[in-house]
Amino acid sequence: MLRYCLPALLLLCCTTADAQSPNVVVIFCDDLGYGDLGCFGHPSIATPNLDRMATEGQRWTEFYVAACVCTPSRAALQTGRYPIRNGMCSSTRRVLFPDSKGGLPAGETTIGSMLHQHGYATHAIGKWHLGHLPQFLPTSHGYDSYFGIPYSNDMDAVKEAPRGKARFNDPKTDYFNVPLMRGEDIVERPADQHTITKRFTDEAVKLITQQKDKPFFIYLAHNLPHVPLFVSKDFTDVSRRGLYGDVIEEIDWSVGQVLSALKEQGVADNTLVVFTSDNGPWNSFRQQGGSAGLLRDGKGSTWEGGMREPTIFWWPGKIKPGVVMDQGSTLDLLPTIASITGATKPGDRVLDGYDLSPVLFDGKAGPRNEMFYYHGEECYAVRSGMYKAHFKTKTSYTGQRQAEIHDPPLLYHLGHDPSEEYDIAKDYPEIIAAIREVKAKHEASVEPADNQLNKR
Amino acid sequence: MLRYCLPALLLLCCTTADAQSPNVVVIFCDDLGYGDLGCFGHPSIATPNLDRMATEGQRWTEFYVAACVCTPSRAALQTGRYPIRNGMCSSTRRVLFPDSKGGLPAGETTIGSMLHQHGYATHAIGKWHLGHLPQFLPTSHGYDSYFGIPYSNDMDAVKEAPRGKARFNDPKTDYFNVPLMRGEDIVERPADQHTITKRFTDEAVKLITQQKDKPFFIYLAHNLPHVPLFVSKDFTDVSRRGLYGDVIEEIDWSVGQVLSALKEQGVADNTLVVFTSDNGPWNSFRQQGGSAGLLRDGKGSTWEGGMREPTIFWWPGKIKPGVVMDQGSTLDLLPTIASITGATKPGDRVLDGYDLSPVLFDGKAGPRNEMFYYHGEECYAVRSGMYKAHFKTKTSYTGQRQAEIHDPPLLYHLGHDPSEEYDIAKDYPEIIAAIREVKAKHEASVEPADNQLNKR
Repeated sequence: MLRYCLPALLLLCCTTADAQSPNVVVIFCDDLGYGDLGCFGHPSIATPNLDRMATEGQRWTEFYVAACVCTPSRAALQTGRYPIRNGMCSSTRRVLFPDSKGGLPAGETTIGSMLHQHGYATHAIGKWHLGHLPQFLPTSHGYDSYFGIPYSNDMDAVKEAPRGKARFNDPKTDYFNVPLMRGEDIVERPADQHTITKRFTDEAVKLITQQKDKPFFIYLAHNLPHVPLFVSKDFTDVSRRGLYGDVIEEIDWSVGQVLSALKEQGVADNTLVVFTSDNGPWNSFRQQGGSAGLLRDGKGSTWEGGMREPTIFWWPGKIKPGVVMDQGSTLDLLPTIASITGATKPGDRVLDGYDLSPVLFDGKAGPRNEMFYYHGEECYAVRSGMYKAHFKTKTSYTGQRQAEIHDPPLLYHLGHDPSEEYDIAKDYPEIIAAIREVKAKHEASVEPADNQLNKR
Repeated sequence: MLRYCLPALLLLCCTTADAQSPNVVVIFCDDLGYGDLGCFGHPSIATPNLDRMATEGQRWTEFYVAACVCTPSRAALQTGRYPIRNGMCSSTRRVLFPDSKGGLPAGETTIGSMLHQHGYATHAIGKWHLGHLPQFLPTSHGYDSYFGIPYSNDMDAVKEAPRGKARFNDPKTDYFNVPLMRGEDIVERPADQHTITKRFTDEAVKLITQQKDKPFFIYLAHNLPHVPLFVSKDFTDVSRRGLYGDVIEEIDWSVGQVLSALKEQGVADNTLVVFTSDNGPWNSFRQQGGSAGLLRDGKGSTWEGGMREPTIFWWPGKIKPGVVMDQGSTLDLLPTIASITGATKPGDRVLDGYDLSPVLFDGKAGPRNEMFYYHGEECYAVRSGMYKAHFKTKTSYTGQRQAEIHDPPLLYHLGHDPSEEYDIAKDYPEIIAAIREVKAKHEASVEPADNQLNKR
């Protein structure tokens, strides 16, 4: 029997995409709060395109990122692995900086490299933040093309810029000497951030419009609404929410452009589009930061507001429209995309994601039952089912320097108490015991990795 | 010319509705928080019927009640007048109680009496709370029929009931000797609150189904999610949000039943349905109270969470679907309903409402520019345009006994800062001056009225 099976197995392993394979677009924002879209309850930010996308698709209310800050969150999305597994998180330097020498290791498989190997045209647009040296850029990680900024839009502040937060109050492009790259070349420096959302959008639309023969994957990672906030002329003073709202409304416009391009090309019914963000709102920037809605805290913290993101899946005619309250994560994108495209997931390492297609297409229960909330290299909190235990907490916006240790951990029921207001630890010692086990098992699965964020 | 005009004028004044006149249904909840519906961002309460209603109709994000507690809020809805004008608010007894002797004065015109006079069949279902003595009941205020409870579902607590808040933790129908009335007769006491939402719904559906010849107005005022929380067997343990979520999901079901009945009767395209609530969530009841989402505070306070309600207008084929961020108020329902039905508004008194039909049907800008936030008989805060000034504040849930006086008032921009976090008073003295004038002008328009709530 064996000799008849082998060719079939080989065929399975080496299947490549054809022109009929589904396209995938992942739209990723930066520091967008859980409550910042109309369809997630914001009263004064108008997001008609995202609202319609949500009505036509699935709005996920419990969708998590794997880290509460930028670099590790992006590493998790790209690889389907908690960043602790590949050295992409740190408790000292929490993200990559312009002086960093590290980045996403060559051995890691990104969604881009997985799909590239599968015969997809793969494109990264926008903020990368997984290493700006050539060997770490998207073009070294499976992407055919790259157009964007390699790290955050507030980095490379020039010495003439106002000090501290003052530079964000009336920001000028010149304050931030951030490079705009095409492939591995700097094509503009400082990047003109006023037009950046528009240009990223134009790039995505162009790629959709020009694509032929091959299915495509586009990773469109807006560098906004991360401060400094910039908008184009067309979106200046359009929002009741002020500048922050203008920025979100321009991103909403961008989403509309992408969906329209897919429709105009006749590929909307063969394209999965996912919209989400990298972490919660940056509360310490006050009105320049967003809102986590009824969730507690924001960026940089392991409270829900730091790690739960407003998320929408869209695929007309294929996705069952509705609201999904099951757990999901950016960790699940790689396995889900593998499943729908037929691409082969890396099989030689621990993956932390689940295939969400049974939820997306068949209305089945979600496969994910737990989330680990990392703060740097440390797991501060664990969600198991509806319960979340905080072993450590650190509030993001009060300047709290030392994490507070909780033993027993704080315990919340996230369904009954989504705002994490009512600690029920004393009533559920058995749930705490079970969560301790889940945490220990997870931590035992983590092997030491060379830390990339501390290198400089 | 005059003798030719007079008959025309008479005709105008005495126009009565015919079978083609539009029907109106107002669905009113009790203590529902701004953030408690899926379409207003709640992550763990499923409201598919309300979400669909919002998508098909208009979701209003800045819709206000005229008082932060029950009785005055309801008086305002029914009359289109701030309750200070008719004695229906008090700073000492903030609502009517079973020992109250007062109620909505006979001289007041309710939506029911306005439409009854215009030839409509008029029905009140659910909680009234504008006086339980016969002369104050719906049947004395223009309603052909009444089926409901005359005051709050937590009143008439029997002496055997657990003390204080303990009686709400595992509530029994027997703890609350609340009467259920049909017309002016008590038909059940205590009202079986487990089945009350279902029975109110059945009554509404029956009235819609049986209605002939005349257009109808139904005021369907659920007495939930006000504590004590009760649900039917069908909705027990259905929600991830626990009992409070079960209650909201039963109300959502109820909305679905009403809209379905309208469709089945073929009158959906000739019926305006409005969904809203009387005041914000009762925060001091913790998980038994709702959530104001990103708004500050709740029931009993003049912060936004106390007085802004999740509101939906629905009229298939007639209302322009979308999200409306203009100001609206339950005060506007009477004039709006007068406008769409051709009924005559009372012309001999101050009305505080605006006709919203240009917004509903033509997508025009809203006519309302200001709201006065009453706490009992006192105007604590004023909104003018996007700015809100707090002259006094009282937090609802901390047991604060004395209001805090602010001079200069606290000032917030509700578009930029919907959570009222960043006081900008020092930057805008001219806006504060203008708001002081608006407040003074309003207060000068108020004539002394016999206080109804203090009578016992």
